Amino acid sequence: MEREKLILPGERVDDLQLEGLSIIQNPSGFCFGVDAVLLSDFAKAKHGAHIVDLGTGNGILPLLLSAKTKATRITAFEIQDEVADMARRSVVYNALEDRIQIIADDLRNTFSHLNKSSVDVVVTNPPYVSGGGGLVNPKDAKAIARHEIHCTLEDVIRTAAQLLKPGGSFYMVHRPSRLPDMIELMRRFKLEPKALRFVHPRRGQAPNILLIKGVRGGGAEMRVEPPLYVYAQEGGYDPEILEIYRRAGVDPTPRDPEKKGENQ
Amino acid sequence: MEREKLILPGERVDDLQLEGLSIIQNPSGFCFGVDAVLLSDFAKAKHGAHIVDLGTGNGILPLLLSAKTKATRITAFEIQDEVADMARRSVVYNALEDRIQIIADDLRNTFSHLNKSSVDVVVTNPPYVSGGGGLVNPKDAKAIARHEIHCTLEDVIRTAAQLLKPGGSFYMVHRPSRLPDMIELMRRFKLEPKALRFVHPRRGQAPNILLIKGVRGGGAEMRVEPPLYVYAQEGGYDPEILEIYRRAGVDPTPRDPEKKGENQ
Repeated sequence: MEREKLILPGERVDDLQLEGLSIIQNPSGFCFGVDAVLLSDFAKAKHGAHIVDLGTGNGILPLLLSAKTKATRITAFEIQDEVADMARRSVVYNALEDRIQIIADDLRNTFSHLNKSSVDVVVTNPPYVSGGGGLVNPKDAKAIARHEIHCTLEDVIRTAAQLLKPGGSFYMVHRPSRLPDMIELMRRFKLEPKALRFVHPRRGQAPNILLIKGVRGGGAEMRVEPPLYVYAQEGGYDPEILEIYRRAGVDPTPRDPEKKGENQ
Repeated sequence: MEREKLILPGERVDDLQLEGLSIIQNPSGFCFGVDAVLLSDFAKAKHGAHIVDLGTGNGILPLLLSAKTKATRITAFEIQDEVADMARRSVVYNALEDRIQIIADDLRNTFSHLNKSSVDVVVTNPPYVSGGGGLVNPKDAKAIARHEIHCTLEDVIRTAAQLLKPGGSFYMVHRPSRLPDMIELMRRFKLEPKALRFVHPRRGQAPNILLIKGVRGGGAEMRVEPPLYVYAQEGGYDPEILEIYRRAGVDPTPRDPEKKGENQ
């Protein structure tokens, strides 16, 4: 099959500059942002692990994690059929069908596809905005990725906790303002918060991104890591962000990380 | 009464350089640390407020808050009789008996002294170390201030929530590693976490102090403030810490803020 046939009108292929990986994106819809790159760096998985991504969008996390970890199996859920189809075509484009499976389903149907307590690592970059009511158009693809229309934070955390083996790890990127909700829900579902990292646009500014790690059945005591800054005081990117992008194989310059992805 | 008669052998009087205030301290026991100074700067109270301090030690928080706020009444609990006596003598030394009352009692007896839902602001710098068992000597005065021997974090948060009027504010300084416990307990007792500030020894280092604000019955959504650094990269104190110390009227140089007070 010709790879080019996998690309639909309006889509483009971005070279991830990481082990030859590429990703199909639709500039008018879903392009990944700094959140996904930071989460792929924060998450860890052992050789042979089974990773699940809840709400994968265009599949950026499975692609990055396939290169950055020795996980043998990555299962990713995406509720929107067209978006899941784009992610699936990226998997085929990269010939990763043996490691990555994209499932076009509601994550509330997770256990129609996978067994409980069977997974080593869960990653997720879920919708950030609480509630789906009001002004949001529930058929708008971007709104679905941004707002809790099809899944609440509680759905995500409950599903992750039920998927993980005891001792399995959960890695999420979210907004700092939702930290009390995250911690309350993680505790409720026995996903003990073990590490936090705040990401700030610049030194002296409040954080706008939060990375959190939980361990199923872990003991109390959490580590708060040093802050991460996206931009350097003297202009340009902070050296640590450049190093994270380099490890992810992504060139930060064409995109504005402050946009945090067009899908958020 | 001669002020000097208020000082017992082994004690010293430190000039707080703030509106003529002084504090009695015992260098072999309780000297306040950076935690109390930071908390006095983080906490806010309106004109005429009634503030309660749960576990006041030598009374540093009531003294600083008497100068930094227009609270008309500050009630402070201290379980250790000798320490409460030292705090009370500092109040008399500063002629603040009309505004500050020191109560030598277990904070679990709070409602023998004060009514529920009657207080505007609660501040607390509680014991940091979980549990009081094991190697700790339960009669050791420093151990009582450091370990949860006479009160757990749950006791402190429950008492604060019960003391506060609806909409009243809670300000606590604690260790970042206990954040999940703080948030879970605050949510349980309807003290909504509204603001967090992490204090780091230096840039690039993990935080070792956490300031948290809660509001009784507040709505969800928390603000995470920019990080605060104690030491500057180039040596000496960070300018913001110097400003906080200046506002508190305390000279930081004689003490090492990394010790976080001899009572912790």
